[in-house]
Amino acid sequence: MKYPRSFQNLIDCLKLLPGVGTKTAERYAFAMIEMDNEKLNDFCDAISNVKSKITTCPICGCMQDSNKCMYCDDEKRNKDTLCVVENQKNVFLFENLGVFQPKYHVLGGLISPMDGINPEDLSIDGLIKRIKKEQIKEIILALRPGIEGNTTALYITKLLKDVDVKVTQIAQGVPIGAEMEYLDALTLEMAFENRNQVS
Amino acid sequence: MKYPRSFQNLIDCLKLLPGVGTKTAERYAFAMIEMDNEKLNDFCDAISNVKSKITTCPICGCMQDSNKCMYCDDEKRNKDTLCVVENQKNVFLFENLGVFQPKYHVLGGLISPMDGINPEDLSIDGLIKRIKKEQIKEIILALRPGIEGNTTALYITKLLKDVDVKVTQIAQGVPIGAEMEYLDALTLEMAFENRNQVS
Repeated sequence: MKYPRSFQNLIDCLKLLPGVGTKTAERYAFAMIEMDNEKLNDFCDAISNVKSKITTCPICGCMQDSNKCMYCDDEKRNKDTLCVVENQKNVFLFENLGVFQPKYHVLGGLISPMDGINPEDLSIDGLIKRIKKEQIKEIILALRPGIEGNTTALYITKLLKDVDVKVTQIAQGVPIGAEMEYLDALTLEMAFENRNQVS
Repeated sequence: MKYPRSFQNLIDCLKLLPGVGTKTAERYAFAMIEMDNEKLNDFCDAISNVKSKITTCPICGCMQDSNKCMYCDDEKRNKDTLCVVENQKNVFLFENLGVFQPKYHVLGGLISPMDGINPEDLSIDGLIKRIKKEQIKEIILALRPGIEGNTTALYITKLLKDVDVKVTQIAQGVPIGAEMEYLDALTLEMAFENRNQVS
């Protein structure tokens, strides 16, 4: 399709977004050209600020846009517990639940030799040092279930064998509202294995 | 959800795009923060250029990003025929077909008193003047079928009653590949009304 060059450039940029193909990018671009200049300027500013203003907390690895970390520097949070997560996205996900406000430790991925991600690529060393330094009493492994998540959980557990810290893992089992016949065998197996006594 | 301010700003901007809700905007924002600086700069440039570099051809109303209109100044196009369309999007749609390369006239909408769009809000005056000035032999009304499209077509046809120009309209009928039972009554009615003799 022969668009004017600057319009085509915008479409090409929009196609970099996840799940956005040509049709969607065109739709977005047409909507953007209809926006007033002020909104487009805001858009530009938002994009350039997001990279320049946001940094990563050197302690927990969470996103921050000031010198204070929303989680590490929050006095109200439990100082004894660390929630270990794969990435920043999961931090927001758990925060959104609103029921539980721990401090976090972002690993920055999961161990996956197939994808060339080894323990030294992740913030595991930092986690161990932090547990010792901050005298953490419990770490909660809230990692995506599956081979990578379980390998990572196992690896961290082994490293902490001689450290005085309780290691827990979020429950793996059948999700609420699931149709049993559509669940995979591994989930069902875990659900049976991790069964709880109710009376 | 408590995001850092600059991240939330980006999400809010992305939510201005059509069909993008909070979840999708968050997904896009997370993808953008993973992009390298060069790509984000390109993105900013693309957004700011699209408004500043693109203008509208004063003759046909099509988008152009130089002083030359891709359609009006294209010597290869048929000088006698004008394709009248609702908006710029449809120009690209028809161009993409590649089978037919007319010159265009963008109305900038369809007559719709319900939405407060009257004939004087559209480029209908310009169309009439242009037909006379450029000695157009045929105008093809390629407007969205429906009350607004048909009203606009009728209005233009009436205005051209005394002008020596052939007015045609794209065929309205059953689309290729359609399941007959899912088509609306009006489409089927038009299909019968506009039936063609085949032998």
